[in-house]
Amino acid sequence: MGGGGGGSGEVEEGVTVVESREWFLSAYAPEGLPTSDHLKLRTVSLSLSVDSIPDQHVALQLLWISIDPYLRTRMTGHEDGLYFPQFTLNEVITAFGMARVIRSKNSKFTEGDIVLHPFAPVAEYCVVLSDFLRKADPTAGIALPDYLSCLGVPGFAAWIGIEVLGNPKPGSNVFVSAAAGGVGMFAGQLAKIKGCRVVGSTGSDEKVKLLKEEFGYDEAFNYNKETDFDVALSKYFPNGIDAYLDNVGGKMLQAVLNHVNKGARIPVCGMISQYNKIWTEREGVRNLLNIVGKEVKIEGFIIGSYLDRWGEFAKEMEGHIKEGKIHSKHKIYNGIESFLESLASIFSSSNVGKVLIQVKP
Amino acid sequence: MGGGGGGSGEVEEGVTVVESREWFLSAYAPEGLPTSDHLKLRTVSLSLSVDSIPDQHVALQLLWISIDPYLRTRMTGHEDGLYFPQFTLNEVITAFGMARVIRSKNSKFTEGDIVLHPFAPVAEYCVVLSDFLRKADPTAGIALPDYLSCLGVPGFAAWIGIEVLGNPKPGSNVFVSAAAGGVGMFAGQLAKIKGCRVVGSTGSDEKVKLLKEEFGYDEAFNYNKETDFDVALSKYFPNGIDAYLDNVGGKMLQAVLNHVNKGARIPVCGMISQYNKIWTEREGVRNLLNIVGKEVKIEGFIIGSYLDRWGEFAKEMEGHIKEGKIHSKHKIYNGIESFLESLASIFSSSNVGKVLIQVKP
Repeated sequence: MGGGGGGSGEVEEGVTVVESREWFLSAYAPEGLPTSDHLKLRTVSLSLSVDSIPDQHVALQLLWISIDPYLRTRMTGHEDGLYFPQFTLNEVITAFGMARVIRSKNSKFTEGDIVLHPFAPVAEYCVVLSDFLRKADPTAGIALPDYLSCLGVPGFAAWIGIEVLGNPKPGSNVFVSAAAGGVGMFAGQLAKIKGCRVVGSTGSDEKVKLLKEEFGYDEAFNYNKETDFDVALSKYFPNGIDAYLDNVGGKMLQAVLNHVNKGARIPVCGMISQYNKIWTEREGVRNLLNIVGKEVKIEGFIIGSYLDRWGEFAKEMEGHIKEGKIHSKHKIYNGIESFLESLASIFSSSNVGKVLIQVKP
Repeated sequence: MGGGGGGSGEVEEGVTVVESREWFLSAYAPEGLPTSDHLKLRTVSLSLSVDSIPDQHVALQLLWISIDPYLRTRMTGHEDGLYFPQFTLNEVITAFGMARVIRSKNSKFTEGDIVLHPFAPVAEYCVVLSDFLRKADPTAGIALPDYLSCLGVPGFAAWIGIEVLGNPKPGSNVFVSAAAGGVGMFAGQLAKIKGCRVVGSTGSDEKVKLLKEEFGYDEAFNYNKETDFDVALSKYFPNGIDAYLDNVGGKMLQAVLNHVNKGARIPVCGMISQYNKIWTEREGVRNLLNIVGKEVKIEGFIIGSYLDRWGEFAKEMEGHIKEGKIHSKHKIYNGIESFLESLASIFSSSNVGKVLIQVKP
């Protein structure tokens, strides 16, 4: 690979310039799925010479990128419901990523280190400030993609939702929507580890099977086949719902509020059914009155506010992984060019498991 | 007053039978205001002879009855959103009341004691189990009606909403809806005592004036004059809302969710705008997605679940009353026959203050 080494293979010591493909937003998409009208790929030249990398910065070669639903909310051009600020037009977009350090101007990092960056450029290469980097330990017996799934954004969201906010007891009736998605997959397993009865909703019969056979859900149903969510929840929750990890919002949340038990908790980490709609077209929840008599707590959360508990989470989750109690399923897209397709997939009911891009094999 | 002493004046020692008027529900009212088609007054004869009063029971002459919005939810005939079970048809209905003990088969209570009963029959006289009775101290320097307002259901609901769940800090921006009603009146004053900036919404210009001049609200607005709640909240909360004590639900809650600050708390003690509607006609809240990014906590509560904190509440509130920091405004209806009219009044935007029935002057 020479000076314009297009992003495949190692970046050798002498190389001073790489060509890097990166995604940027050329226009906001207030509703519907973002398309190639909004998201575009371009190639930029990146200098890797020692002089061109500022102090405390590192040059990274991206290995894996985590595709999560919240990314969609940074592309609407308006701030309602936002988790993070809108992406700036024409600048490279960012996502949770894993990378290899290829140049370092911070003594804490050495070339070859595998690091995680919560806001990594969606690019093949980048030069970034090293403040937000965390090292992954490739000798810990954990598969690298797991750092972006059970040990990454979705695993931590599931853990906050179940362990911290939902806090179900052994025997509690726990419901998880988008159950075969990144967060739901781990939420159900964590609730099972706590001794709960767990039911999940998902978008295909294949995923219903997966939830019951691979992820240990007691029951699961295909919401596309249920004409009346109320009837479905009556069937699957004859004793009511004690905790609901809401990933979808809208009609499912409304149905749940007709089946909550006294003191039920509803941590909300997203409302994926609503992301592609402008807010005036979003589904209204008509039965919020139910939260009063049943003393329900509905609580939105973003994982960035719980970073002080990351260590506790990682230790617990690593323990579960090593004991074989947590299984992951990944949907892997290959190459940075697959970003648009991978983003669309998480809004499709056919998606199974945590969506990742393997930027470099 | 003889054996059939119709409910006015004292009940003398020798009297063994009283005629008592009482309200019962003859039919449920799923929507709209309950009328004389649903609520009826009848006269019953009550034996006061020692033999006819069971052990641990007392005979009471009602003095005051507290008219609170939750009563409406016990008359719908269906259980959604319920606080308490539905009233049983043809049985006397119950409400928080103050009474004088006229006969006692419990050594803890003496004739002449003034007592409070959370579920007193809406009647002139009654014989009840004494388990739920609490004595009021007429020598404590507190006006008797205050036991049913700032020291009763609405005062306690306001205290739980502000002190326990809303928990605003000095300088926090606090919004209270139905601000001139029973709960709102005290909620605003409690938030002011905590050093917050407090804004209330209410249903008339007269009440806007009252909130600002008598109850110390920093600002208040007449929701009937605002065509767009979003515009109103932008104006009154240029720095956003940190805590919202929701008494009304519906469109106002939706508007608030467009103005919440990070970590805002929304304790909900009722949704009075929705009580007279069947649930399919209730207003949907379309922007719940906002709770995720802003990490908002919406929490329904009923005061019955916080009775272990009543002592703490009463001590604090009595202190405020004696220091002149809490003002009450009562709308007093006279005579048990005014129940229907007094219940209707709390759903009218012209109602001001805590609605009470003085059963016996």
